[in-house]
Amino acid sequence: MPLQVTVWNENVHELEEPEVAERYPDGIHGAIADAVDGDDRTVRTATLQEPEHGLTEDVLANTDVLLWWSHCANDEVADEVADRVVDRVHEGMGFVPVHSGKNSKPFKRLMGTTCNIKYRHGGETERIWTADPGHPIADGLEESFEVPSTEMYGEPFDIPEPDRTVFISWFEGGEVFRSGVCYRRGRGRIFAFRPGHEEYPIFFQDEIRTVLDNAVAWAAPTEGADAVWGEVEPKESLDD
Amino acid sequence: MPLQVTVWNENVHELEEPEVAERYPDGIHGAIADAVDGDDRTVRTATLQEPEHGLTEDVLANTDVLLWWSHCANDEVADEVADRVVDRVHEGMGFVPVHSGKNSKPFKRLMGTTCNIKYRHGGETERIWTADPGHPIADGLEESFEVPSTEMYGEPFDIPEPDRTVFISWFEGGEVFRSGVCYRRGRGRIFAFRPGHEEYPIFFQDEIRTVLDNAVAWAAPTEGADAVWGEVEPKESLDD
Amino acid sequence: MPLQVTVWNENVHELEEPEVAERYPDGIHGAIADAVDGDDRTVRTATLQEPEHGLTEDVLANTDVLLWWSHCANDEVADEVADRVVDRVHEGMGFVPVHSGKNSKPFKRLMGTTCNIKYRHGGETERIWTADPGHPIADGLEESFEVPSTEMYGEPFDIPEPDRTVFISWFEGGEVFRSGVCYRRGRGRIFAFRPGHEEYPIFFQDEIRTVLDNAVAWAAPTEGADAVWGEVEPKESLDD
Amino acid sequence: MPLQVTVWNENVHELEEPEVAERYPDGIHGAIADAVDGDDRTVRTATLQEPEHGLTEDVLANTDVLLWWSHCANDEVADEVADRVVDRVHEGMGFVPVHSGKNSKPFKRLMGTTCNIKYRHGGETERIWTADPGHPIADGLEESFEVPSTEMYGEPFDIPEPDRTVFISWFEGGEVFRSGVCYRRGRGRIFAFRPGHEEYPIFFQDEIRTVLDNAVAWAAPTEGADAVWGEVEPKESLDD
Repeated sequence: MPLQVTVWNENVHELEEPEVAERYPDGIHGAIADAVDGDDRTVRTATLQEPEHGLTEDVLANTDVLLWWSHCANDEVADEVADRVVDRVHEGMGFVPVHSGKNSKPFKRLMGTTCNIKYRHGGETERIWTADPGHPIADGLEESFEVPSTEMYGEPFDIPEPDRTVFISWFEGGEVFRSGVCYRRGRGRIFAFRPGHEEYPIFFQDEIRTVLDNAVAWAAPTEGADAVWGEVEPKESLDD
Repeated sequence: MPLQVTVWNENVHELEEPEVAERYPDGIHGAIADAVDGDDRTVRTATLQEPEHGLTEDVLANTDVLLWWSHCANDEVADEVADRVVDRVHEGMGFVPVHSGKNSKPFKRLMGTTCNIKYRHGGETERIWTADPGHPIADGLEESFEVPSTEMYGEPFDIPEPDRTVFISWFEGGEVFRSGVCYRRGRGRIFAFRPGHEEYPIFFQDEIRTVLDNAVAWAAPTEGADAVWGEVEPKESLDD
Repeated sequence: MPLQVTVWNENVHELEEPEVAERYPDGIHGAIADAVDGDDRTVRTATLQEPEHGLTEDVLANTDVLLWWSHCANDEVADEVADRVVDRVHEGMGFVPVHSGKNSKPFKRLMGTTCNIKYRHGGETERIWTADPGHPIADGLEESFEVPSTEMYGEPFDIPEPDRTVFISWFEGGEVFRSGVCYRRGRGRIFAFRPGHEEYPIFFQDEIRTVLDNAVAWAAPTEGADAVWGEVEPKESLDD
Repeated sequence: MPLQVTVWNENVHELEEPEVAERYPDGIHGAIADAVDGDDRTVRTATLQEPEHGLTEDVLANTDVLLWWSHCANDEVADEVADRVVDRVHEGMGFVPVHSGKNSKPFKRLMGTTCNIKYRHGGETERIWTADPGHPIADGLEESFEVPSTEMYGEPFDIPEPDRTVFISWFEGGEVFRSGVCYRRGRGRIFAFRPGHEEYPIFFQDEIRTVLDNAVAWAAPTEGADAVWGEVEPKESLDD
């Protein structure tokens, strides 16, 4: 059965700002969906404006990996939907928050920290270094690549110490940032990826698309073992 | 200035079950408070029944380390108070959930997982092994010690991979459990300690008291560095 | 191209103890090789007695995953061969030390710790719990399984805090042990698995074979990114 | 009893290059020793040229924290002395390799990786960001500070994923580096700190001295629990 991928986007900039709509005629979700499509994958999109933001029980039950782009509307996501995403991650769904998806309710609930950063608009060069060249999310990349114009995110990034730090960014204005970090929560794999501001055509850049494509493969659920929770009988005799 | 320690207890079993009240005449909070008291420490207690559960803004602002015992009333803790505890941990307050405090709202919000376990009542032997003999929370312990009669908790314990696994328990009935695990979230140190059922006089046992006392010292806030979040000016010229 | 698997065994007990030779007529390496064989895999074996212990430059250059069983002859492994194994792990070869392979030169050099344990011969029940049910090395297992008669290993196990703790063992005699632990060193994935004493037919047990088979799949090399080391030119102008 | 600190330096540049001798009239070891001196500490120095490099059994047995600066003479350190340092770290001695001390035999043996980096001479600005503002090694620092002229080290840094990443550096020439990383091996705490080239007066800079001073406090041994290794009797009856 093909891997079932859902790309979620708040889709607000596209609806409200003509330049963004022109830059991303199919929405940022459309560009990401195109980047992660492939053999043995079915990719669909969902947006904030749909009923239940397009993330119904049924959609999530049939999603193996969820990519998530959000920015200005993080607070408009219903708590119930955010919790539903979190629950599905615990069950094994992969979760790939992109750019300020790091401020989304699901990511913050999965991390248990503020996820605070510093930032700067205006456009500057970002050079993304692979700190973990053995990681499959870096498959096929050179040692570094540049995003020619982007919003800056700077450390400290208030997250739990990552399981793996795959990418670290250098910014022209003098900051650094852990741009690709991996976690597991329950059975679900999480990869938070920094790049992706709506003001730039970042999701059409080859290396960015490669990373997102790799991240989907990495975050796919695996079978694992049984887990039994709740009240249980002893395995050994307690008679004595 | 002395370290300011607050011991929180839901205090429900003590109020509702005469055997528990007899076993812990000053409440479980009283027994824990006595265990962690010492030079250069001021220890106070707070319970569910007090206004704001005794964890007002003022109390938390003046708490360096919060110990937390809860069991049957985890759901009765107000969301607002739980969030206040989480915020203070992010700021640096140490947090030591004990026994089913692992099911408390603050701990689950800090972990981002279900914190599910298996369990069994009835009383059986637990042998607590120090897996990390170099850890300061194990100061002064032998390689293992026994709790003669306790409730069982068994793996899998649905938590993020710990920063350090200090203790692992063996149970007579055949299970194992990571009984002492360390995390940091924001500036705050967290140590979750398994033992402590209300049906047994566990908080009067020397080794248990040693661990709690050590945990308070370990979880105490440290100064750290400045952190600047939000919009910032560049450190380097972006003129070109 | 099929995954190239090499199973290394010191093969000393088999040569010196008739009961072991009878129990493992093809050697422990033969039993492990049979367990991890499969479609898209070529499996070969190598032993201490061969020139360069059967781990020549050529063999290792053509090994994707190396399983390693050793016990009484850990010190007889040539330093040069041990270093060759370590170098190949850094390059990406998976490494699966089994049982007292945890005392082998390659594993200790990769860990940087003593890897000390406590132990007991004589035969007793071990119950292996899956602490990380979402991990692919646990694929297809129940929540726990028993090895009916084994040598005991007990905590503290002097290893770096694992990246993931997949299995924790309960022993009839009262000890616990982290029986399946994951690391990465360089590009190479490492999974140390505890069971497997030569006095028992452990490598014919289904669950053990499942774990070893899963471990080979998990430890297989991935492509990753380029890494450039040594002296480099600046990416940015340093003229000013 | 005061904390016993030993500062080790290969002391080769000072002996062979007049500019370095002029810059560090008491040697780099002298400058570091001055930085970490204080109440309740006794600080001594040792160098490569002394018998057993000044790191005799007796000196190490009486060292709580060892700082280590080395560069061009890493290969000249006797294997026996390197192993002695590693053994003492396992027993609890803190170890703080500075600058290319990351290439020293003890550090590489403790890490189990190549510790490879990229580098560039010539002098450029380094800005050191605190990625973990809650860490005690960052006590008293601002969010970032600059070393005005330094040798560059760049990612990928081939180390195990750190327990904590305290500092990340930005370099004028376009690279990034994890400049302050924490580990534990056995009972010993390890903090590797990047800055410190002999061509610049870096060890006279206030922030650098603060970090080294904090690192000594952080790396100091703690008591911990007993650990029993080797063959043991069962804790439970195995009669049945």
